[in-house]
Amino acid sequence: LQGPGLHGAGRISDRFWSPRLELVRDVVVPYQWEVLNDQVPDATPSHAIENFRIAAGEQQGTFHGMVFQDSDVAKWLEAVAYLLQHERDETLEQRADDTIELIARAQHEDGYLNTYFTCQAPGERWTNLCECHELYCAGHMIEAAVAYFEATGKRRLLEVMCRFVDHVETVFGHESGQIAGYDGHPEIELALMRLYDATGEPRYLKLCRFFVEERGQLPHFYDLEWERRGRTHHDFGAGTQPFMLHKKTYSQAHAPVHEQDRAVGHAVRFAYLCTGMAQLAQRSDDKALLATCRRLWDNMASRQLYVTGGIGAQAPEESFTTDFDLPNDTVYGETCAAIGVVFLARQMLAAEPDRRYADVMERALYNNVLAGMSLDGQHFFYVNPLEVDPKVLADNPILEHVKPVRQRWFTCACCPPNLARLIASLDRYVVGCADDTAWVHLYIGGEFELPLSAGTLRLHQETDMPWQGAVTLTIGADVPVQARLALRIPAWAEGFEVSLDGERLDAEMSSNGYLELERQWQDGDRIALRLEMPVRRVYPHRALRHDAGRVALQRGPLVYCLEQADNGERLHDIALREGGIVDTLEGTDALSGMTLLRAEALRENAAGEALYRFDDAPTYTRTEAVFVPYFAWANRQEGEMRVWTRELPRRA
Amino acid sequence: LQGPGLHGAGRISDRFWSPRLELVRDVVVPYQWEVLNDQVPDATPSHAIENFRIAAGEQQGTFHGMVFQDSDVAKWLEAVAYLLQHERDETLEQRADDTIELIARAQHEDGYLNTYFTCQAPGERWTNLCECHELYCAGHMIEAAVAYFEATGKRRLLEVMCRFVDHVETVFGHESGQIAGYDGHPEIELALMRLYDATGEPRYLKLCRFFVEERGQLPHFYDLEWERRGRTHHDFGAGTQPFMLHKKTYSQAHAPVHEQDRAVGHAVRFAYLCTGMAQLAQRSDDKALLATCRRLWDNMASRQLYVTGGIGAQAPEESFTTDFDLPNDTVYGETCAAIGVVFLARQMLAAEPDRRYADVMERALYNNVLAGMSLDGQHFFYVNPLEVDPKVLADNPILEHVKPVRQRWFTCACCPPNLARLIASLDRYVVGCADDTAWVHLYIGGEFELPLSAGTLRLHQETDMPWQGAVTLTIGADVPVQARLALRIPAWAEGFEVSLDGERLDAEMSSNGYLELERQWQDGDRIALRLEMPVRRVYPHRALRHDAGRVALQRGPLVYCLEQADNGERLHDIALREGGIVDTLEGTDALSGMTLLRAEALRENAAGEALYRFDDAPTYTRTEAVFVPYFAWANRQEGEMRVWTRELPRRA
Repeated sequence: LQGPGLHGAGRISDRFWSPRLELVRDVVVPYQWEVLNDQVPDATPSHAIENFRIAAGEQQGTFHGMVFQDSDVAKWLEAVAYLLQHERDETLEQRADDTIELIARAQHEDGYLNTYFTCQAPGERWTNLCECHELYCAGHMIEAAVAYFEATGKRRLLEVMCRFVDHVETVFGHESGQIAGYDGHPEIELALMRLYDATGEPRYLKLCRFFVEERGQLPHFYDLEWERRGRTHHDFGAGTQPFMLHKKTYSQAHAPVHEQDRAVGHAVRFAYLCTGMAQLAQRSDDKALLATCRRLWDNMASRQLYVTGGIGAQAPEESFTTDFDLPNDTVYGETCAAIGVVFLARQMLAAEPDRRYADVMERALYNNVLAGMSLDGQHFFYVNPLEVDPKVLADNPILEHVKPVRQRWFTCACCPPNLARLIASLDRYVVGCADDTAWVHLYIGGEFELPLSAGTLRLHQETDMPWQGAVTLTIGADVPVQARLALRIPAWAEGFEVSLDGERLDAEMSSNGYLELERQWQDGDRIALRLEMPVRRVYPHRALRHDAGRVALQRGPLVYCLEQADNGERLHDIALREGGIVDTLEGTDALSGMTLLRAEALRENAAGEALYRFDDAPTYTRTEAVFVPYFAWANRQEGEMRVWTRELPRRA
Repeated sequence: LQGPGLHGAGRISDRFWSPRLELVRDVVVPYQWEVLNDQVPDATPSHAIENFRIAAGEQQGTFHGMVFQDSDVAKWLEAVAYLLQHERDETLEQRADDTIELIARAQHEDGYLNTYFTCQAPGERWTNLCECHELYCAGHMIEAAVAYFEATGKRRLLEVMCRFVDHVETVFGHESGQIAGYDGHPEIELALMRLYDATGEPRYLKLCRFFVEERGQLPHFYDLEWERRGRTHHDFGAGTQPFMLHKKTYSQAHAPVHEQDRAVGHAVRFAYLCTGMAQLAQRSDDKALLATCRRLWDNMASRQLYVTGGIGAQAPEESFTTDFDLPNDTVYGETCAAIGVVFLARQMLAAEPDRRYADVMERALYNNVLAGMSLDGQHFFYVNPLEVDPKVLADNPILEHVKPVRQRWFTCACCPPNLARLIASLDRYVVGCADDTAWVHLYIGGEFELPLSAGTLRLHQETDMPWQGAVTLTIGADVPVQARLALRIPAWAEGFEVSLDGERLDAEMSSNGYLELERQWQDGDRIALRLEMPVRRVYPHRALRHDAGRVALQRGPLVYCLEQADNGERLHDIALREGGIVDTLEGTDALSGMTLLRAEALRENAAGEALYRFDDAPTYTRTEAVFVPYFAWANRQEGEMRVWTRELPRRA
């Protein structure tokens, strides 16, 4: 089944992204396998595979790890599926098949599958949805099953998960003896929509709708199940109220979704829930639900989104805070949350193509998401601050979550596998098709299928993005196909030129930010798009308290930052001059191949040792400041970093 | 006994401070009595007086409150003592005497006195010094005893506490069976020095020295006593390691004091410890210990002090963070910690008169300390931020401690009684005497005794500080007295003029920041000092990341701030112009009688709804910004507040 507005798969072949995909294949996914199998000497054992062996009755022992440990195996399998889709690898496929068989053996007769409850608390299935991630784990395994089926044609895991979902369907509902509830961590919703897409089974869509619509209803499900199970907390036992029971915004369960109008709570939960809702709205043509998604998106994108595409302004609850509140140093900005933004943007694009979604998707992808992984693919950021001073981190607990260098991954291994599956499936984010229109959302080199009503086109993209703004799109077609090709003009492009087979076109951008080219496309048609990619100065909305008087630099989709490695200590002492020249320069060593920026700047002079001085305004010395792409920060020595730089107006 | 450099008592009669002293007398102390006696309907019962009744065996029941609940009664008594010293009040004195008798009846045969251990854990005396505040409570009661003795001449409580200290002396020491330890919360040190001053008993000084010198020695006392008592935690029982055991910097117990070179840990603990150390150094002429105090002071004052005189940059541990790290919104800046700065500054002045101590004392007193109490004396801040946006507080847990309006006081009632005792004893901070020199540290109206080697002078101060910089000092003397009068020239004074009996003197400031006038003083001599008090622009050290590009306004000792009440929302959008005019205006309504400031300013214009925009630098509209004294903020409606304001240089 290929619904309207869906995004097809393709094959990435891109100077920027292919090496990253290879890192995922050669470094991340193999390392992840070792972690799952407790083969990394320095890491806390994951136990994730062993949990399945114990659940399958093939090994003695007890469950270890987080209650959602199973999802680590699912994410690995999903990433493997995408890798296999790109390139067959018998050893890897055998390993995946074996793992799938192990998973199948851990499944109960009735279809239930979850190693925590099987091993640890067999009598407590479905008694603590609020905290225990059963449907969340199911969702990740469904995603893996669908991806593996799509990649290999093998139905084994798909069938396992369909059986589980069939069981879930009997457990949840409004009939007597059923549970009218939902998971504390959204994920099952988007997974059920993927399963629906893969199988065409309308029951899955219906079950997804059930979970979406139950959320936040009164009397509140979390309260009811808490009473039913005798007021116990998953971690702290009897009597302690779970945090989520008290703070229902945390899991977006404070109100029915159609009454929600702001992005609140745990940022990853928010993005996953909305992704599922957007899919559901689009597949079921539910305009009211789509309006809800749009409302929540708009609040997120226009009031709570970092310039790096990150979300989640506060660390203690990994959550949004409130409108126009985006601190740069205490931010959480979890890699997984930015990945969630990419997921959600993709579904919003499927529902209603508009560059505002693609602009944010690209912003998140090239900045917050990509910063999550080191250039060598071996180290990861969970938290992505926009301002770091390593000297102060150890001495203030509110910065405890911020790391000045990327870490190997350990106990709660959400971000690295999430990065792996996103990068490995990046081809699914590039183009979209519905009826007679194909949209090009991202300019990433490769070959993409465009199944249109009048026939299928192949689109071959070549580009040096994000470093250069030129893109060549070559059409492959077995027969001529009448269709509209809609090319996104990113908001960062100061202008553009487009030509077809060498002839300049006088095309205009449509209101949704796409350049629409309609004709009968022939094999070999060649579109050349040149996006003007000057350095842009990004200014914050005046309500953004933490960025007042500051500017960020962006070139193409890349947001830049200052690092101590290039600029010395005290980055806050550097100020750009309004309208000052910024030019590009080539990165060297660790940053070779990258375009850096060099800006006319002023540097505050020392003015004695006094902590405070009277009437002696700071003076400045002219200097040059070097900016590096945000995604590439912290790949040299540990040091300060800052995205928003002071800017002094020419005249006050 | 009146040692060198001590500060005598006097009588405040001052247009600014007298009404505040009356608030303490008429509102704070009576309310505090009601709280202690559980007579405030809306407040959590304090139980503090009841605890003493139970401990005395006069009432059935169990202990309630914090482990240091006794200190609330002590602080009340101490404040009462100062009030009685100013003005006899038979009812109040009877109430105090009754309370003292109750305390005496709660004392054990052996001198021990602590209602928590008497009622709750009689077998556990002295087993958990790290957490349980036994010596801290003793210290506060000693302070009360000394103050009450000095005010009334009554020795009852002093004798009770001397008996307790005699007992403590048998418990602590290096002999077999004795404890070589010290309290987790310094306070006993400064209290023992006060007791030494009041009684002249050298054993008290010696005991103080023991506690100071034991601190931070290895093997570590906290570890030893933890093992001895079977590894229990005061709050969480067996097995849980007390936080302070793990983090010894918290209680300044990470190293022997002579090895410490930075202000670390809990800000109040730091200030109290150093206060005791400075007293000990001065009374015992211990130059090495004084050097330690100076080193710690200098780190605090030149790298970790807010412009409001506050300390404690982080809330989770109510602690310092690190050098040059002074966030304005997440700060703790506890009222008690700033009071501790005042205590410490007073002792440093006694040890070595230098205006740098008095400048900080005054800064803390007129800003952070005074902001702790509302203008009506009924509401209190524990936390004193330099930047507040009430809209964001509820949604970010790292701002949970910040209140946008002052609160009534409840469970952990440290700050209001601390404010009460400081304001009631403010006369002790104004002047200091040693040998033939009297120093005037603060310009506060009243009558002060100056006991000098050649005889006693009376100093009558009249002033309109902090609003006007003129001070008249009139000498009272029964016989002419040859002496040096040293008048502090505050760092904020741009210049000064001094005249004697109408004749201008051509005096110069000495290197320690005091103007020294030496002569044979006659009754009726009249010194007129005029301190120039223009509005000063305060600029931060360039290492202060959070204040970069910003300025604060100060006039006299008062630091000013912007409030929403005068300037509307989004105070971060207001920028001063370098060198722009700032003039004064009279406050009205709640702020009547105060001098406000009006500054030429620029206000950032709206620039559309986009969260981020390209290449469209902010534009500004000229406006006027109104600043109010920081101490007076939040006395009108709830709203934003900001001390550090952006400043735009004239040319960049």
